[in-house]
Amino acid sequence: MSDMVPFKLLISREEALKRILNSVKPVRRVETVPIEKSSGRVLAEDIVAQEDVPPFDRAAMDGYAVKAEDTYGASQQNPRILRLVAVLHAGESINTSVGKGECIRIATGCHVPPGADAVVMMEFTEEMKGNVSVKDAVHPGANISPRGEDMKKGEAVLKKNEVLTPAKVGVLAALGHKAVSIFKKPCVAIVPTGTEICEPGSQLKEGQIFDVNSYTLAAVLSENGAQVTRSPVVPDSFDSLKSAVVRFLDHDLIVFSGGSSVGERDLLVKVVEETGKVVFHGVQIKPGKPTLFGLVKGKPIFGMPGYPTSCLSNAYIFLVPTIRKMARLPPIKPNTVKAKMGKGFVSGSGREQFLSVKLIGGKAYPVFKKSGDITSLAQADGYIILPINLDVIEEDEEVTVTLFE
Amino acid sequence: MSDMVPFKLLISREEALKRILNSVKPVRRVETVPIEKSSGRVLAEDIVAQEDVPPFDRAAMDGYAVKAEDTYGASQQNPRILRLVAVLHAGESINTSVGKGECIRIATGCHVPPGADAVVMMEFTEEMKGNVSVKDAVHPGANISPRGEDMKKGEAVLKKNEVLTPAKVGVLAALGHKAVSIFKKPCVAIVPTGTEICEPGSQLKEGQIFDVNSYTLAAVLSENGAQVTRSPVVPDSFDSLKSAVVRFLDHDLIVFSGGSSVGERDLLVKVVEETGKVVFHGVQIKPGKPTLFGLVKGKPIFGMPGYPTSCLSNAYIFLVPTIRKMARLPPIKPNTVKAKMGKGFVSGSGREQFLSVKLIGGKAYPVFKKSGDITSLAQADGYIILPINLDVIEEDEEVTVTLFE
Repeated sequence: MSDMVPFKLLISREEALKRILNSVKPVRRVETVPIEKSSGRVLAEDIVAQEDVPPFDRAAMDGYAVKAEDTYGASQQNPRILRLVAVLHAGESINTSVGKGECIRIATGCHVPPGADAVVMMEFTEEMKGNVSVKDAVHPGANISPRGEDMKKGEAVLKKNEVLTPAKVGVLAALGHKAVSIFKKPCVAIVPTGTEICEPGSQLKEGQIFDVNSYTLAAVLSENGAQVTRSPVVPDSFDSLKSAVVRFLDHDLIVFSGGSSVGERDLLVKVVEETGKVVFHGVQIKPGKPTLFGLVKGKPIFGMPGYPTSCLSNAYIFLVPTIRKMARLPPIKPNTVKAKMGKGFVSGSGREQFLSVKLIGGKAYPVFKKSGDITSLAQADGYIILPINLDVIEEDEEVTVTLFE
Repeated sequence: MSDMVPFKLLISREEALKRILNSVKPVRRVETVPIEKSSGRVLAEDIVAQEDVPPFDRAAMDGYAVKAEDTYGASQQNPRILRLVAVLHAGESINTSVGKGECIRIATGCHVPPGADAVVMMEFTEEMKGNVSVKDAVHPGANISPRGEDMKKGEAVLKKNEVLTPAKVGVLAALGHKAVSIFKKPCVAIVPTGTEICEPGSQLKEGQIFDVNSYTLAAVLSENGAQVTRSPVVPDSFDSLKSAVVRFLDHDLIVFSGGSSVGERDLLVKVVEETGKVVFHGVQIKPGKPTLFGLVKGKPIFGMPGYPTSCLSNAYIFLVPTIRKMARLPPIKPNTVKAKMGKGFVSGSGREQFLSVKLIGGKAYPVFKKSGDITSLAQADGYIILPINLDVIEEDEEVTVTLFE
């Protein structure tokens, strides 16, 4: 049949991913957000400490600010008696100096008064009638957080391209930043296609099914740093697909959650061929062979397989690394566990096999039913990837399961 | 000193966590959201399939719908010739029956027409002049996804309390749900306290430092399912703390990111004692000893240590499990790696030690400086918890590092 073009050459998963990652660029647009909205986002500026943190020598303990040398030799049996000249409660500071033989009562966090070079902890003291009995010797600097101990003025404490964690947000706060410059999220247009595809919430007509792929793709992409736009369903015609490509070229990435028939897929191939170039079409992986990747005016375009399971598993394999590179997020560190197969599985497709599994009693059971069945992925705890040359995996063989969370 | 009450009895980390988790309840309030906003949230209803999915027998391949028995014995050398009676493009359906010796060309996803019980893949056919040469025998059901294969009408496909993943959102879409009922996020009030604490973005006065803890706590809590309200800084006085407790009792949880001095901490203890009850005050962990947990009118209240590192590490240890239980999220599966210590570390505090580490060349190096130093956590890749009775950990000893992401 003239309108059904077979796959010309299937490429390996590694080669496909390499070509994709060579073709996409990290987003360059930046925005400024309040620091409380910045966790998980990517810094677009180096953060240099403009002041020392802490900004002054702070008492690290409740106790008495002293001259350390006044305590030398002090012990439980042989206390030193110092004269109490002032009291500093939390948040207070004072210009009164600590002179020889003197001390100032101080709360944790207070600016250590001039003249003092150590703090004796409350536990090792006794206060009475304006005098303090010190029962422990301290060295200079004891129980003081010196100015700049945490961050020194001029120090580059955070670097552009770092992902902000709760602790790094804390660094921004400690430096007094109210807002921070971060990279914007890459914008992704998700375009469901297919004459038989219908929006959830509407009434199915004869022969129709609900759109699944644009929702699963939106969820996966959003979790990995994308700003997602879901397009309404686009019918399977050359002109509709072409105008969808043109309309969404203002996005950083366009993902077609494609039709499932060869004819539908080929329409998108033709559109990409006419308006840009096809980088590859067809990958040696099951499910998910009919994945298309191309570039139109430099913008990356994916045609995902139409079957829900194929579409979603290929999203984990190809779209997640892609969007993370674009969003400047580091590759996911997969959370993997070793498990024994609870049941054998016959692959033998001549392609790599993405096999979703459920872990029961520490064993991995395949839950893959058919490419169309979204429940198989919904019930899975993770997946294994079986190599191309593996036809059968036996019960009790050890596998590495990549967990979904 | 009369206003500085020592810790009465330190309890273990396990005991502290047990008491907390026994005291907090999962949130019961629900809300309805569009399914595209539901990933990561917790289902508040069982989802029962109201229709079969797929809703009809679908062609799983492009090819020809046939009566399987018409193909028995067919082979490359010995094809069977069937009469083409109709053509079904994607999304089309037809009432025309497939009779004996007949076939209908069909695209993937189309409703298999009446009379047909199998689909022969395009690859094994040749079409000419209204006839189709079939070169492969197929069994009944071949290349058909039968109605209800993925989900059967009446089947409970998702259960209340499941966390929605991208695949589960796909299940909702496949069933035609436009919106879904989920549990609301528990509301948490974070109250920074301390006379010396100043909001980032403002000008520090003598003796002041910027508020760090409410920002790190907000980030950690938000990442773990909380809806966070950050209060302005509350001064350290009994009345201010008490009125903050009263004001935020309409929240599910109140977290004071407390003052660092004993006096300040004790004020909150007194407020909780007067308005409710203290469950514990003081944990055998370093840093983070001065953690307070109590209940006021049944509402859980935390007093976190004032030092940024202590506050944040205790947030990982205590607040994360707490808020996840309240949000009905499963406990985090920690992503751990084994590593050898790159450098020895002397603990010997008589408490468990939370030690933040950086992984360099596969070895774990302690980055903990002092409790006040937020940069130590910002630079860490993860942490190890050293047991109470361990005084020293030697270089090259193997440890389990819990990664921060």
